[in-house]
Amino acid sequence: MADERPSRFGEPPEAGLPDDIASVYAKNRERIGFVPNVFRAYAKRPDHFRAFMAYHDVLMKGEGGLSRAEREAIVVAVSAENKCQYCVTAHGAALRILGKDPVLADQIAINWRTAALSPRWRAMLAFASRVNEPGFAAGDDEIETLRAAGFSDDDIWDIAAIAAFFGFSNRMAGALDMRPNSEFYAMGR
Amino acid sequence: MADERPSRFGEPPEAGLPDDIASVYAKNRERIGFVPNVFRAYAKRPDHFRAFMAYHDVLMKGEGGLSRAEREAIVVAVSAENKCQYCVTAHGAALRILGKDPVLADQIAINWRTAALSPRWRAMLAFASRVNEPGFAAGDDEIETLRAAGFSDDDIWDIAAIAAFFGFSNRMAGALDMRPNSEFYAMGR
Amino acid sequence: MADERPSRFGEPPEAGLPDDIASVYAKNRERIGFVPNVFRAYAKRPDHFRAFMAYHDVLMKGEGGLSRAEREAIVVAVSAENKCQYCVTAHGAALRILGKDPVLADQIAINWRTAALSPRWRAMLAFASRVNEPGFAAGDDEIETLRAAGFSDDDIWDIAAIAAFFGFSNRMAGALDMRPNSEFYAMGR
Amino acid sequence: MADERPSRFGEPPEAGLPDDIASVYAKNRERIGFVPNVFRAYAKRPDHFRAFMAYHDVLMKGEGGLSRAEREAIVVAVSAENKCQYCVTAHGAALRILGKDPVLADQIAINWRTAALSPRWRAMLAFASRVNEPGFAAGDDEIETLRAAGFSDDDIWDIAAIAAFFGFSNRMAGALDMRPNSEFYAMGR
Amino acid sequence: MADERPSRFGEPPEAGLPDDIASVYAKNRERIGFVPNVFRAYAKRPDHFRAFMAYHDVLMKGEGGLSRAEREAIVVAVSAENKCQYCVTAHGAALRILGKDPVLADQIAINWRTAALSPRWRAMLAFASRVNEPGFAAGDDEIETLRAAGFSDDDIWDIAAIAAFFGFSNRMAGALDMRPNSEFYAMGR
Amino acid sequence: MADERPSRFGEPPEAGLPDDIASVYAKNRERIGFVPNVFRAYAKRPDHFRAFMAYHDVLMKGEGGLSRAEREAIVVAVSAENKCQYCVTAHGAALRILGKDPVLADQIAINWRTAALSPRWRAMLAFASRVNEPGFAAGDDEIETLRAAGFSDDDIWDIAAIAAFFGFSNRMAGALDMRPNSEFYAMGR
Repeated sequence: MADERPSRFGEPPEAGLPDDIASVYAKNRERIGFVPNVFRAYAKRPDHFRAFMAYHDVLMKGEGGLSRAEREAIVVAVSAENKCQYCVTAHGAALRILGKDPVLADQIAINWRTAALSPRWRAMLAFASRVNEPGFAAGDDEIETLRAAGFSDDDIWDIAAIAAFFGFSNRMAGALDMRPNSEFYAMGR
Repeated sequence: MADERPSRFGEPPEAGLPDDIASVYAKNRERIGFVPNVFRAYAKRPDHFRAFMAYHDVLMKGEGGLSRAEREAIVVAVSAENKCQYCVTAHGAALRILGKDPVLADQIAINWRTAALSPRWRAMLAFASRVNEPGFAAGDDEIETLRAAGFSDDDIWDIAAIAAFFGFSNRMAGALDMRPNSEFYAMGR
Repeated sequence: MADERPSRFGEPPEAGLPDDIASVYAKNRERIGFVPNVFRAYAKRPDHFRAFMAYHDVLMKGEGGLSRAEREAIVVAVSAENKCQYCVTAHGAALRILGKDPVLADQIAINWRTAALSPRWRAMLAFASRVNEPGFAAGDDEIETLRAAGFSDDDIWDIAAIAAFFGFSNRMAGALDMRPNSEFYAMGR
Repeated sequence: MADERPSRFGEPPEAGLPDDIASVYAKNRERIGFVPNVFRAYAKRPDHFRAFMAYHDVLMKGEGGLSRAEREAIVVAVSAENKCQYCVTAHGAALRILGKDPVLADQIAINWRTAALSPRWRAMLAFASRVNEPGFAAGDDEIETLRAAGFSDDDIWDIAAIAAFFGFSNRMAGALDMRPNSEFYAMGR
Repeated sequence: MADERPSRFGEPPEAGLPDDIASVYAKNRERIGFVPNVFRAYAKRPDHFRAFMAYHDVLMKGEGGLSRAEREAIVVAVSAENKCQYCVTAHGAALRILGKDPVLADQIAINWRTAALSPRWRAMLAFASRVNEPGFAAGDDEIETLRAAGFSDDDIWDIAAIAAFFGFSNRMAGALDMRPNSEFYAMGR
Repeated sequence: MADERPSRFGEPPEAGLPDDIASVYAKNRERIGFVPNVFRAYAKRPDHFRAFMAYHDVLMKGEGGLSRAEREAIVVAVSAENKCQYCVTAHGAALRILGKDPVLADQIAINWRTAALSPRWRAMLAFASRVNEPGFAAGDDEIETLRAAGFSDDDIWDIAAIAAFFGFSNRMAGALDMRPNSEFYAMGR
């Protein structure tokens, strides 16, 4: 019953897609059975598609001290604060799968503050939430708190970058009126 | 008298910089006489440097209906709302130069709402400011208002993308405690 | 893995429960297989249990123009705005079942504004959200808008009462640190 | 000169009132000389009248560690934060009478933070005000602060329940456009 | 029982007061029987006393289209929004007396939006409330609305100036921890 | 290119100005080469002109522990928080000149929190910013913090009074739609 259009600005016909984008479509169909709407929406503007995916991969798949699940948890927590329909749904599914604790994933999708978090995740999401505030500028004490919780300078950078980049992504979803594919809702449960 | 350190996490020695980044340093020294601190801060993490600059160039230098000055005006307006010390200063300088109206640039850096804007710029910055709100999701009526003001779908996408991407950038400056180079203050006056 | 304690103030031993409360426990076990934590938390104070449940039933099961699903949609929308871990989870499950559209239910649990709502539900949830604002007082024009959308005076009263009563309930869950039973997460999918 | 109508949805003719509600009218006329508008408004829907009054009495007249004046102080403080015309006026009068310190009552009706409160009342109203915030969820430290101020777990529950229930009541007054009876203004001075 | 000290910074001994200030004390004792704490607080700094009172008199007693009661209504509405204990109490008393409608005065002291206002007063207080917002800048349409409601340009200036000046005064009361004289509470009832 | 009109309500012809106001015009032309628009706007109402300037001079030029530059820093910080186009521009110029550190002045005009402040200025501007909040009332601890930073009671009064008075002035500029003279932008650089 949900409207699943990827974007209010439409999507390009698959026939004419550049090879690299067509290959992303193909890989997604192979791995999860469908093409997430974020790809179908961004495909309309290939340069944006590539810049977005390249940055996404640096943040979400680059080497570093944060696990894949931790990175997704940051995305879900921030997207929930920004009430982003697409990102909470799509990354909520990813967190259920990668985090191997679907209940915790659903809790973070509602409110990380009242989720049953470990101290490490609580410190991480508290900082991500701070980054998400308008007018954010970190005090030295906040950085020290994170170091005391075991995060390196690069980890702190990554938490901030993931939180802030998905604040950008949330707003793009809001501008494009991006709707979640219905497949996401049942994934990882 | 200002503290000009580029980042609370330090900067890498120039000696060992990868060639592509060293070349960005060199070009900046040639063109404006110094290396903006955003480059010196991001150089610590070359993959982030490259992803950021690639996306930046798509947004700020890509083809499209928005002039260079208009794109900088969006950055300045959003950065002012987010009170970003680095971005208001650096992009304020860029807008004074590219927009060829330094007084208007300084007005936008204080408050775009009370700046002496053309109707086109007012519509553009009003939407950029909306995108910058937490929980943003555009209504169809907002999109129609922009179309009526002469913006194409790609222009609307670009306004949203520039506004949201620099909200990300503002937050990174706040995480890194990035300080403006003192050269920016006098540029373009 | 989730902490499922019903309340930070504990729960009474089942042995000594008053008959009417014991009977609620029994009926829930029969119907859904477990006792929702809200009952286990309130059982500590039987007078509160009874007053809460009596009012709840007037609002959620009383005669009137709003369907059961519509009433749950109001609860979910308001609880999401108040980020209530317990209520979004428990009433989200109820809405998935009663509304027979689990995707729509999950959308309302994230953000009713960007859910795929009918005009009637949009008018209903927009007013529920207004009621939920601090300092709410309805203008005559808001009431007229609802009447124009087909709601009777009693319906409008019910929308307001359900929205406001669950704002009360959300706050009690926040005071008691009430956690959702893990059974809720899979119900109705 | 004030408009004293009890509700924008009107009130039922007294002739046909159910006995229990008619008896509430009679008792109020006997005790204070008039029928508070909240009764006249709710009389339109007898089931709501009964559920509201039953819960009200559990909270305001039930056994417990909070005095009657303390409970009214919570109602007045929360209603003032919610700017509820009816509740500040009616419960302000009750607090002037029950608290035996009309000046303090009027101060709480303006701003409990700058009222001349005892440490016990300050702790109590600070928590009530927290409960009243959107998205409220109590931290363990807040509960400890209240325990250190001498409040039992049931007292803390009662503070939260009174604060949250009258947040509900404030919103109902806002939905019904309930106006205070003019008799309230001079009571207890 | 209320603490009536005029200021956390103390008050000067009456013996050594400058003649003009001593004369203000004397006139107040003659007219209302006591010296309002605002005078006793400001007397500590005679230059501030004089500048404040001079501006106050221009705004509150100068010629113009707004009646004395209307000016006090603006003060009470803004002071209530700013939750100023001293100003709501002292100017609330003044409005009860000058406006000759004590119930209406008390309603404005709680919430001008739900008070039984004439259209002229509603337009006036709506604009005063706008002026009181942080970041206020009037749009041309707001000015036109006021003109259509019968206010001259000087009247509009006066509404804004009174609203903004008492926002200043509210903050000074908050800085000095100024407490209302207990005599105010019963005046004008 | 900027619209430099002093006020939406116009300015009086210079020919008929009262002597004291004409003399202010003359002195400004002599000292800085032009008449700041705030004088041209207020000249329309001589009593307001005089009351404003008298209070201004008590606050900005009176004896006391705060330097002229410190007083201007308070004005700039508060005006930036209130986004006042006229005041940030005009007092920003004054701070660049009086403070003899134009870069610091421009930083305060963007965001005092991330400016390179001395501990004394940070304490001073933090309190000014608190005063600027709606509903401000100082706690005893805030006053103690300022005393510990070396401020006398009169200094604390002055910080509060300057912050609050310019909050009033910012709102008047917003009501009058006061525009900065273009000469201000280059002053003090």
